[in-house]
Amino acid sequence: MGLREEILEQPAAAARLLGARADFDAIAEAVRQRRPVFVVVAARGSSDNAGLYLQYLLAVRNGIVTALAAPSTITLYGARPKVQGALVVGLSQSGRSPDIVAVLDGARAQGAITVALTNDPGSPLAAAAEHSIDLRAGPERATAATKSYTTELLASALLSFALDPPTAAEDADVARLPALMAEALAAETGARRLAGGHAQRELCTILGRGLGYATAREWALKMQELAQVAALPFSAADFEHGPLALAEPGFAVLAVGSAGPELEAIRPLLQRLRDDHGARLVVLSSDAAALDLDEGLPVPPATPGWLAPIVEIIPAQLYTYHLTIARGLDPDQPRTISKVTKTR
Amino acid sequence: MGLREEILEQPAAAARLLGARADFDAIAEAVRQRRPVFVVVAARGSSDNAGLYLQYLLAVRNGIVTALAAPSTITLYGARPKVQGALVVGLSQSGRSPDIVAVLDGARAQGAITVALTNDPGSPLAAAAEHSIDLRAGPERATAATKSYTTELLASALLSFALDPPTAAEDADVARLPALMAEALAAETGARRLAGGHAQRELCTILGRGLGYATAREWALKMQELAQVAALPFSAADFEHGPLALAEPGFAVLAVGSAGPELEAIRPLLQRLRDDHGARLVVLSSDAAALDLDEGLPVPPATPGWLAPIVEIIPAQLYTYHLTIARGLDPDQPRTISKVTKTR
Repeated sequence: MGLREEILEQPAAAARLLGARADFDAIAEAVRQRRPVFVVVAARGSSDNAGLYLQYLLAVRNGIVTALAAPSTITLYGARPKVQGALVVGLSQSGRSPDIVAVLDGARAQGAITVALTNDPGSPLAAAAEHSIDLRAGPERATAATKSYTTELLASALLSFALDPPTAAEDADVARLPALMAEALAAETGARRLAGGHAQRELCTILGRGLGYATAREWALKMQELAQVAALPFSAADFEHGPLALAEPGFAVLAVGSAGPELEAIRPLLQRLRDDHGARLVVLSSDAAALDLDEGLPVPPATPGWLAPIVEIIPAQLYTYHLTIARGLDPDQPRTISKVTKTR
Repeated sequence: MGLREEILEQPAAAARLLGARADFDAIAEAVRQRRPVFVVVAARGSSDNAGLYLQYLLAVRNGIVTALAAPSTITLYGARPKVQGALVVGLSQSGRSPDIVAVLDGARAQGAITVALTNDPGSPLAAAAEHSIDLRAGPERATAATKSYTTELLASALLSFALDPPTAAEDADVARLPALMAEALAAETGARRLAGGHAQRELCTILGRGLGYATAREWALKMQELAQVAALPFSAADFEHGPLALAEPGFAVLAVGSAGPELEAIRPLLQRLRDDHGARLVVLSSDAAALDLDEGLPVPPATPGWLAPIVEIIPAQLYTYHLTIARGLDPDQPRTISKVTKTR
């Protein structure tokens, strides 16, 4: 099974994980007994981008601060940061990154609530954590993460539910997710056409804000590892105050702005980039006017804002897949990626 | 006064801040009374890179977890994350970023210990925080931050001291810092020569690990905003497992590896990039063998590892300054940067 099939399988993978929501009950029970004061997320690569979504969601939905762990502090310097009273989450497709396992090991020894979100329930990470959630993405054979990424995002939403139960509306939102993800796959024809026109691009900037920043970072990683395009991801807030100096006529910008506050926060910047700097935009959005700013990649309009990262990454994956082919590269055999992050 | 003068002024600015160490006494007293359980840092741009150094230092030296705040969660979504029991630090040269002020305002209302590290003691950020430290960098007129960045790093080290008093060796390290920074300025002649040969480069990757990751990110920001080079910063740990696919013969890599574990963690990768991928390296290091891997930018060999980010950024700034000139651009008038980050 190749990368495209794994992209197409994402609605089914999400449905499988939704069918296993009871797996989170033990975590909900643990946090009822010991409400965590803060959260630590340890992850690398695509999983680190999923951790960014978890960070935003826990802040907005649960009112809890999340630190994205710097595993190097433990593995390079032997740091032992105090995490009593915290919830410590390890996110890893393979569950085999030694530095992520080290963070969980240390946290469990201190008595923190530890959770592994991994696609391999037999992995060292699953063994290290008190609570282990199987992502149920199924075997991910392509080296670039796709369905493991979206199931990590969904698992993040379900972890947020374990801390504070969902409203009826949130429950309904999550139940519609597989259908919305399937609808997002319909962007493929347009994505292929756009990508065909961009095969010569060696460089682009990817902008997002708020929840869309996780998508911007994950899209950039896919562009780097698959299409071999030097993609620079930025929070639009940071981009405006410095890196905007890079913008020349023809400057390629991919923008994440599904809807809501994250779109309104970047819309004026996108207009300036187009009108004042001569940038070429691809806007990933469910908003008709945003899609018409220049070229567009449509996101299903019914997508709830708080779940947008799980849906909007799909057209971005399809664009990157077809760009990789348009550039004469093999999306199933990207050079030099190893599937397991072995950093110590 | 232009950018070069502000780069050259950094040893004096650091000495001024060291002369005001007593300003941190009130913070030390506050944390003695209410030991914080975790730390939150709110910052944008260069200050966010200083925050990364603070995060690593507090983990390694103080054993405390630091979350880099996502101010958008507050300003876009109205989140009110719970920070009782935390130390909340706002880092901003101007002290006028509304979203950073909003983080401090919210934290103070909750009873967190709040600290502003800013170059303007009359700024809204200084007023919002219970404790305000004047960076004493002096007026920073160039739009790109240099001396405000290194004083933010030094203030981070002194904040770490306020949580746990320094050993005699650490005290001696800090006292030598202005002299080491002055010694680092001697890299200018070599930096100018290297930069002159790199004027045609439009793209580069900047690698660092551990404490060196903050330097990699800050160097990349300077390359983007001043030299208009698309510089992609990576933790070397993340780079190896995906973005390495970008490496082609002639691929330009700037590597941060002053010494110690952060150098040893990236040395094998640098050798592979040079030998197997045909990359061209500029290595920022105090290690003679590392400097000889390809082209080198020297860091004073006596630099203590834990203070390396404060010293090693200086040759990187000088390289970027001269690259900007070599590319026919004006380092004192970079396009489109505004000095105050006004993001809400």
